[in-house]
Amino acid sequence: MKVVAKNQVKPEKIQEFMDLCKKLVEESVKEEGCIEYGVYQESENSGILTMLEEWKDESSLDEHLKSRHFTEIFPLLSGCLEKETEISVYRKKL
Amino acid sequence: MKVVAKNQVKPEKIQEFMDLCKKLVEESVKEEGCIEYGVYQESENSGILTMLEEWKDESSLDEHLKSRHFTEIFPLLSGCLEKETEISVYRKKL
Repeated sequence: MKVVAKNQVKPEKIQEFMDLCKKLVEESVKEEGCIEYGVYQESENSGILTMLEEWKDESSLDEHLKSRHFTEIFPLLSGCLEKETEISVYRKKL
Repeated sequence: MKVVAKNQVKPEKIQEFMDLCKKLVEESVKEEGCIEYGVYQESENSGILTMLEEWKDESSLDEHLKSRHFTEIFPLLSGCLEKETEISVYRKKL
């Protein structure tokens, strides 16, 4: 199960956003069901900062969304954004 | 280097789209610089079918975009789409 969480970050807030993400990544990768969790910058638009994630199954993603690091840090990220995070949850087909 | 290529597929064209993707995936994963190449379906919208890809570096992505399987199959996919594929190329930051 993969997650793409795309953020359009205000230019003056990129450093603050990355600082908040650092802790979120550090804690998320320690979760038992986390296969991958990284923050990526769009090559042609430095304000697009996207979490690309892989979780073992739906319950491990649910646990992540209830985790203390997620519920504490995710709301703080919104202050850095031009608009709400676009979240897509994907299942592998091919 | 990761690529997210998001497609909104016409409901009646999903099977045709997947059949075309099958060959594209089979050939792409054989490329030397391909770390990952899969087709994923959005959990809440079965018409969103997205390639989630990882390439060793920029030159391996360039080689992919020039490959025979890509240049032959990608144009055929467009006949299945509601709108043009949204392609994002990402570099890891965290």
